[in-house]
Amino acid sequence: MSTNYKAPVDDYVFLLHDVIAPTVPHALGAMARDDTRQVLEQAARFFEKVWAPLDGPGDEEGCHFDNGAVRTPSGYPAGYAALCEAGWNRVSVPEASGGAGLPEGIGQAVREFSASACNSLGLYAALTNGAHATVRRTGEPWMLEHVVPAMVAGRWAGTMCLTEPHCGTDLRLMKTRAVSQPDGSWRLSGTKIFISGGDQDLTENVIHLVLAKVPGEDGRISDDLSTVRLFLVPKRLVDPDSGELGGSNGVVVAGIEHKMGLKGSATCTLSFEHALAYPLRESSQPGGTHRKSSAGMSGMFDMMNSARLGTGLQALSSASRAYGHAADYARERLAGRAAKVEDRTGGTADPIVVHPDVRRLLLKQASFLEAARALALHVTALLGEPDEALRADRSAIGSLLTPVVKAFFSDRSFESANDAMQLMGGHGYIRDNGVEQLVRDCRIFQLYEGANGVQALDLVLRKLPAGGGRALGGFLDMVDATAREAARREPLRAHADLLRQAAQDIRACAKWLADPSRNPYDAGAASNDFLAMMGIVACAWMWLRMSDVALGLLPGAENGTFLRRKLELARFWFARELPLVPTLRQRVETGAACLMALPADQF
Amino acid sequence: MSTNYKAPVDDYVFLLHDVIAPTVPHALGAMARDDTRQVLEQAARFFEKVWAPLDGPGDEEGCHFDNGAVRTPSGYPAGYAALCEAGWNRVSVPEASGGAGLPEGIGQAVREFSASACNSLGLYAALTNGAHATVRRTGEPWMLEHVVPAMVAGRWAGTMCLTEPHCGTDLRLMKTRAVSQPDGSWRLSGTKIFISGGDQDLTENVIHLVLAKVPGEDGRISDDLSTVRLFLVPKRLVDPDSGELGGSNGVVVAGIEHKMGLKGSATCTLSFEHALAYPLRESSQPGGTHRKSSAGMSGMFDMMNSARLGTGLQALSSASRAYGHAADYARERLAGRAAKVEDRTGGTADPIVVHPDVRRLLLKQASFLEAARALALHVTALLGEPDEALRADRSAIGSLLTPVVKAFFSDRSFESANDAMQLMGGHGYIRDNGVEQLVRDCRIFQLYEGANGVQALDLVLRKLPAGGGRALGGFLDMVDATAREAARREPLRAHADLLRQAAQDIRACAKWLADPSRNPYDAGAASNDFLAMMGIVACAWMWLRMSDVALGLLPGAENGTFLRRKLELARFWFARELPLVPTLRQRVETGAACLMALPADQF
Repeated sequence: MSTNYKAPVDDYVFLLHDVIAPTVPHALGAMARDDTRQVLEQAARFFEKVWAPLDGPGDEEGCHFDNGAVRTPSGYPAGYAALCEAGWNRVSVPEASGGAGLPEGIGQAVREFSASACNSLGLYAALTNGAHATVRRTGEPWMLEHVVPAMVAGRWAGTMCLTEPHCGTDLRLMKTRAVSQPDGSWRLSGTKIFISGGDQDLTENVIHLVLAKVPGEDGRISDDLSTVRLFLVPKRLVDPDSGELGGSNGVVVAGIEHKMGLKGSATCTLSFEHALAYPLRESSQPGGTHRKSSAGMSGMFDMMNSARLGTGLQALSSASRAYGHAADYARERLAGRAAKVEDRTGGTADPIVVHPDVRRLLLKQASFLEAARALALHVTALLGEPDEALRADRSAIGSLLTPVVKAFFSDRSFESANDAMQLMGGHGYIRDNGVEQLVRDCRIFQLYEGANGVQALDLVLRKLPAGGGRALGGFLDMVDATAREAARREPLRAHADLLRQAAQDIRACAKWLADPSRNPYDAGAASNDFLAMMGIVACAWMWLRMSDVALGLLPGAENGTFLRRKLELARFWFARELPLVPTLRQRVETGAACLMALPADQF
Repeated sequence: MSTNYKAPVDDYVFLLHDVIAPTVPHALGAMARDDTRQVLEQAARFFEKVWAPLDGPGDEEGCHFDNGAVRTPSGYPAGYAALCEAGWNRVSVPEASGGAGLPEGIGQAVREFSASACNSLGLYAALTNGAHATVRRTGEPWMLEHVVPAMVAGRWAGTMCLTEPHCGTDLRLMKTRAVSQPDGSWRLSGTKIFISGGDQDLTENVIHLVLAKVPGEDGRISDDLSTVRLFLVPKRLVDPDSGELGGSNGVVVAGIEHKMGLKGSATCTLSFEHALAYPLRESSQPGGTHRKSSAGMSGMFDMMNSARLGTGLQALSSASRAYGHAADYARERLAGRAAKVEDRTGGTADPIVVHPDVRRLLLKQASFLEAARALALHVTALLGEPDEALRADRSAIGSLLTPVVKAFFSDRSFESANDAMQLMGGHGYIRDNGVEQLVRDCRIFQLYEGANGVQALDLVLRKLPAGGGRALGGFLDMVDATAREAARREPLRAHADLLRQAAQDIRACAKWLADPSRNPYDAGAASNDFLAMMGIVACAWMWLRMSDVALGLLPGAENGTFLRRKLELARFWFARELPLVPTLRQRVETGAACLMALPADQF
């Protein structure tokens, strides 16, 4: 790789302390600005120096499957050990569970740095965190005592096992079954595919969280989702009394996938063969929107929601690293002359950053990345609201935005990584230059944890109508409040008007969707465009908020250059991205008719 | 690969005989419908059976560089030999030059089939065709006698050598030099990179067409483009009298690139070491827009223009094959239930083609692909206008649309291949399923033959102002004429109005761009969006023309299903793609200010 990774420490300090904390005080707790900076600089050093160099070679080498076990790329075991040794895998895990107990916003920063540095390796840790969070909420006391600490420390890893060869999204078709035995234990059998980190050589045990159906009295499984439960299935058996590791459980690694990218992350087919399984309890997390869907799925849904936010952030992380390559290239590569004579350098050719279309590509990337980073922090803060009186409303808004973070971030991050490649011309297509790997890696985030089409359906079919549209109303109220506040500053008045108008477009679409006379296909037909509108408006909201903050800080600020840069990125987003909203609204209101007429055999 | 390639024979018969021939009679000459079908069915059989199976294994194996020579994937030499044996490499080459002399439209169909079946392998033949076309226009008599026939037959191949390590687009920076010797011969030295087919094991010789600078009397090369000339440099020496092959010329293959995709195509670094070089003459092709730029570049520019059209078609070809995968998957994969109860099948789950968002992805692909295919045929017909009275105007419109075909086709084809992958969820990301290769292959077309940003600049800075905007005026007049004609049919009246309005948006943007008070950066800032507008409107133009034809043929037609499908695809394009035009216009008219304010070191 020609470019080293540089973690965005300044940006996170600004976002956490100047943008988030003033409105959501709980988000940072007692962290002082200097402490935040110190932690993030330490993290940056670690990921820039220790992890970033593992990314390219890990892609080249990939994972191997030999003798029934996975071998990760050669630098990974040491890199993972160093992560856990330094404690970067558990920064925001509560102290009571063995973590550092830092605010979730710091946790996001560290996750972004890790995923930018080496997305494949970071995923093993991210999934483990998601899994032990689920065990903490739904596990038996012996699991909290013996399983969770080993996972938090990083000695054991975790996975999430949903997909089967013939079904991903539609869990009614699932065939994996768990049967209670006469001695009260459970045995689980079936095949799961696409299991990230389903096996590896980084940890001494793997804790699989597996969805399975409980057969009825006739021994048959049904299509009824209420028969689905979530089970903890260790790779190696664990003694519930002592926590000691025993022999292998019936979890056979049947193979790994050969993929377009994210090659250092082992994507496994697991065959559960009468494996000892422990049922998990109903999730006790507040605000989970799916809690009533089935006795066992709530834990999985909570885990998936956190994984969806994590996926959005992973996507952003790849795009962020790609942007670094592109910006370096744009400043260094010489070609053509600036169109304005006075902007020309002395040489035969100028750095390509003088050309407006090159700047368009860079600004498109940066204005997305930095708004998305801010939005992810906001969503996390909303979901973590500690105030009882606000919690239900805020967490509903957070849930509403979760599919947006997953799908809009991954769609735009892929576009962003491709824009970075585009700027480099043919050089971007060459493996050694680093960006093509980021493009390949980034492509998975639109697909896994529920393909983006499924996210859009979750948004329009579940999140939008829930509570009579209250979550959307709450979100748009926050957007309007930001616009009102920003409009007090004259330079932001035009932006504020545009944002309010865009919020109105969203309201109009929501009303259109809620019309009971709608064709049953209209919601699905509108889903993708509605989600894109939400993403664009949410980013505009962040830009207006950041602009407001930046203008407030500018007089006498030491970081004036940094703050003025934010104002320019905001200007770009309002000038060139927000205008997409009316077109998207028009598409939404076009309805399903132009999609449904063609007979299926005509495709 | 799970899906076999199925060449679009019916579509080409329709386009050639029902859409193109009635308005541009020269395009098909005396070809009867049955003859066209017979030729295309033979071609389809060949590429489906012989070439399509080479695509996946060729990607897996890639090219190798051993002992200074390139080895292509193991099936390639036999596949290439079979192509030339059957004559599919020279379908539309004039009979006088050893080809079959069929119309250029048939040639396009065959090129699409070949690129869909195996894009990497097809490129060797496509570049050879481009190279011998240039030699036919600019070569000496001995080349026409000995070089061209060997290239047309496929015994020798051709390349195009422009890019150097430090420069691609900006040829002023070129360092390769050609020096005339006392004996009247020329010797050429320098390093060229990114040379597709720069070496291979498919042919017994390679004819390199190389751009080089001729030093001044002081022995120095300058930045002046008028010192650039085009040379023919054979890999193995050719006796001008007998045409016999001699020893090696000083062309050393220094290595090949490891790329994201198109791995069966060898991308070489060539080191020319005092190689014997033959200057080519001024191009005599009518209508070349760059003929006055320099004594030697005209041939290269003509070759590049044809390569740009070829690149657009290559992109389309990858996207077309990807669409086949997606459509098969959508009809076969079961998940969820149709939103309308009456549309449900008997099983637990329905094929995903019942879901509107899945159909959106399919229709987006098909409506682009089939309009683009038609547009490529139209542009070829315009450029090949035989009528003296019409030639200048028509070929200017063809030249105007050339960067649109290259850039819009490649941008949308990449999106299209990604939409195919998206529809398949996680399965699309797995190598065995075939689509991820098409995505990787397809990515290069936005980058090579001039990155798409360069195409957009060519459009707004050269093609648009040329002749006081006459080419654009001519194009929009054709669009309006189609709208007028179609508006006679009541069902097409709304489409015709929308198309006329979109043409007005383009006129307004062109006027905005032509305003002499513009900031010098405005054209560059607008270029990408203006090109996208042109592409969307040109496709809408094709859809209206095809709809008009389809409605005319429908009463009593045997292929009613085929024709009604076209009407549905048109409806989709007008409902969901054309509405982007006003947003793009707004972006164009936003100007460069929001791009140029940030200092270069702030990226």
